[in-house]
Amino acid sequence: MLEGIAIVGIGLIGGSVGLAARSRKLAKKVVGIGRSPEKLAEAVRLGAIDQFSLQLTAVAECELVVVCTPVGRIARDVRSCARFAKPGTLFIDAGSTKGDLVWGFDIDPLDGSDFVGCHPLAGSQKSGVTAARDDLFENRLTIVTPLALTNPEAVEKAKAFWKSLGSRVIEMDPVEHDQILAMTSHLPHLLASAMAMTTPQDWLSYSAGGWRDQTRIAAGEPENWTQIFLANREMLLNSLSLVERNISAFRAAIEAKDATALLQLLLKGKEHRDALGD
Amino acid sequence: MLEGIAIVGIGLIGGSVGLAARSRKLAKKVVGIGRSPEKLAEAVRLGAIDQFSLQLTAVAECELVVVCTPVGRIARDVRSCARFAKPGTLFIDAGSTKGDLVWGFDIDPLDGSDFVGCHPLAGSQKSGVTAARDDLFENRLTIVTPLALTNPEAVEKAKAFWKSLGSRVIEMDPVEHDQILAMTSHLPHLLASAMAMTTPQDWLSYSAGGWRDQTRIAAGEPENWTQIFLANREMLLNSLSLVERNISAFRAAIEAKDATALLQLLLKGKEHRDALGD
Repeated sequence: MLEGIAIVGIGLIGGSVGLAARSRKLAKKVVGIGRSPEKLAEAVRLGAIDQFSLQLTAVAECELVVVCTPVGRIARDVRSCARFAKPGTLFIDAGSTKGDLVWGFDIDPLDGSDFVGCHPLAGSQKSGVTAARDDLFENRLTIVTPLALTNPEAVEKAKAFWKSLGSRVIEMDPVEHDQILAMTSHLPHLLASAMAMTTPQDWLSYSAGGWRDQTRIAAGEPENWTQIFLANREMLLNSLSLVERNISAFRAAIEAKDATALLQLLLKGKEHRDALGD
Repeated sequence: MLEGIAIVGIGLIGGSVGLAARSRKLAKKVVGIGRSPEKLAEAVRLGAIDQFSLQLTAVAECELVVVCTPVGRIARDVRSCARFAKPGTLFIDAGSTKGDLVWGFDIDPLDGSDFVGCHPLAGSQKSGVTAARDDLFENRLTIVTPLALTNPEAVEKAKAFWKSLGSRVIEMDPVEHDQILAMTSHLPHLLASAMAMTTPQDWLSYSAGGWRDQTRIAAGEPENWTQIFLANREMLLNSLSLVERNISAFRAAIEAKDATALLQLLLKGKEHRDALGD
């Protein structure tokens, strides 16, 4: 059991890390660090953290610091906290993009602490600690993205932590991570948002399960997704070009009334979707 | 209670009409009409129909004929069956497009029978009678699309039938129906399919709930959707142009690293999605 786990940023992910760590008794205390005393007090009330602090100095009592702030703030928050950390403290994150983040720590490592980039593939269109769940990471996949210079002991500790929350864990190159997630997560979010904004609101009562499921993620936090899209800009633009090409193929087949071409496109879509299962 | 209901085409929708009509005892018998004795026998075994026939003459014993074949075949199937129908028989359908279909019956009405175009907004990515459910229409919306010349009594009977299956029912102009459904159903299917086919299959293990939900409908029957897309070709192309414009706005904001513009797009997508609720 650890002496303390600090969680910086107590929203859906940070709150779920806290709930899961507390229910599994992974540390003597789970400390929430943030800027809003009201939100932190609510996190205590919901059982996501044992106590909270508005001061980064609180990390000094913890061997593990989980930074769950939005993608654009993670690097800064890690470095700010690391100034107060005991030697050997492990910093991990839960951000949706990895390349831009981990390279910074490769070029300019922390002094006395380790950073290991992590991305639990778990989430929800809901946000905030009220949506947090202690089983959010169970049977989900967490991708850990160490670099050549990352301390192997720190990597093992990071992997063990996510496993102890019930997650499966794999290591992946951060560039490959960003390339794959651009396609499997960031591009679907863009399309969901585009589909939702294109639909007149007074037509929604004539939608069924297809529209509802397709656009569900468009309800996610716009501020967070702005940061994710810009952090993974090039990979996302590449994936966008690929889907635009296929959308154009649909357009061409429909314009030409080409049933054979249209059927081939729909068959390919079904083949890929069926490969996932329900 | 009706003497008989005939259902032409016993897949997901036809099978669900049968299960619902039988469990609600709406007719003394529910007769399935189709071309495959094996599938029809399975429908009997599953309780979706009481008996089956490979002959269209079977409609002569039924006051209500529900044509649940794919969109491209409905008009032909109705006319083929109508030759054997008793005077006053009501034909309805369950197809996803209405304009092309109902205009045909306006120009060239059935002799002695009535046709009322209907579209229950219920379905699933699954197909076939094994996926049929007796509650598929409960609390869903069915759109009925009469024309000026449609027999008002027939319209009332059609509406009463869907209500008796648990559905809410509204009347709508068939052109308006096709315009709205192009946006709320056909375009989401196109995007789901394009997203699915664009994603390499060996990346699917790195997808989470967002990709899964967004692409769910891409597993639908490609043959049926080919017919739907072509039957609603112009309206679908119009909707496609609108979403392409918004996708291009996302591209431009990402290329320009314009966080403000990107945030506005995501906020608008969230606003429209939040208007639907969970």
